[in-house]
Amino acid sequence: MYEVEVKVPADHDAVRDALAAAGAEEGATVEQADTYYDAPHRDFASTDEALRVRRVRTGDTEDARLTYKGPKVDTRSKTREEIETGVEDADDAGAILEALGFSPAATVRKRRTYFAVGEYAVVLDDVAGLGEYVEVEREVPAADVDDARDAAYELLETLGLDPADQIRTSYLGLLLE
Amino acid sequence: MYEVEVKVPADHDAVRDALAAAGAEEGATVEQADTYYDAPHRDFASTDEALRVRRVRTGDTEDARLTYKGPKVDTRSKTREEIETGVEDADDAGAILEALGFSPAATVRKRRTYFAVGEYAVVLDDVAGLGEYVEVEREVPAADVDDARDAAYELLETLGLDPADQIRTSYLGLLLE
Repeated sequence: MYEVEVKVPADHDAVRDALAAAGAEEGATVEQADTYYDAPHRDFASTDEALRVRRVRTGDTEDARLTYKGPKVDTRSKTREEIETGVEDADDAGAILEALGFSPAATVRKRRTYFAVGEYAVVLDDVAGLGEYVEVEREVPAADVDDARDAAYELLETLGLDPADQIRTSYLGLLLE
Repeated sequence: MYEVEVKVPADHDAVRDALAAAGAEEGATVEQADTYYDAPHRDFASTDEALRVRRVRTGDTEDARLTYKGPKVDTRSKTREEIETGVEDADDAGAILEALGFSPAATVRKRRTYFAVGEYAVVLDDVAGLGEYVEVEREVPAADVDDARDAAYELLETLGLDPADQIRTSYLGLLLE
């Protein structure tokens, strides 16, 4: 599966009004802390890959996930191959990576609220040190990437946002800039 | 914590009798399939490290764990630093490792039965392609490694086994020989 994901900077108050008008369903609000790792044998900045340990706090529950993101397969959106599994203990997962020679590069912290609009997730991100963003995302098979990306642009317009404002740089990249 | 682990080849029927006489408590029997990975940037055979995805089937339940084993810190036993975390999906964990350039080297399959004798776990392993082994193991802080290893040797003798038969080669190593 490929993740189609389009991100724009956006004032959350205005977007919340548009989401309500569009009949969007509000989901959970979570705190995410994403630690990205450098590899000992590849320059992820050149290969356009990423390796991440994500800690997610939802109310009193804390979950962790290990994620590999492959290079972008589409220059118009940020579509990548993504492989992910839950891990029991984020600290142990990080310690295994460090023992193998990977090193923590930076940690991105954000407060994220999910909305569902049809097949799409609309997420409102408040990113520490960066500000407010909206992402529209959906996982689809490779054959459906083009259609899903076009529909994501239409959804952004429905929410009063301009797809031309799309930012292809990751939060990690923006923080490191 | 360090894992003190002593392994000898042993006929399981005889050891089961000795365990019963020693008042050992029989625990679970599980099927384990351990896939070991080669690294793209280090020769684990030279560095004496290991990276493993373990699938464990207990009755109808399947669990998976990701484990890093550091070099042996003790030439007399097989003591190593071990870092481990449960993973939600063994296939996804393996796919992440492969995307990062690690490659599956071999898979060790065994049927393992646990017994508890005091602070020690005594495990009876029936390893596909290798035969029957007994391992005595315990996790201890670094300062207690010497004492724990001596006590493991004594326990082996109590079970009618000879510590001099100790095999320091891993099942993976034995299979690859």
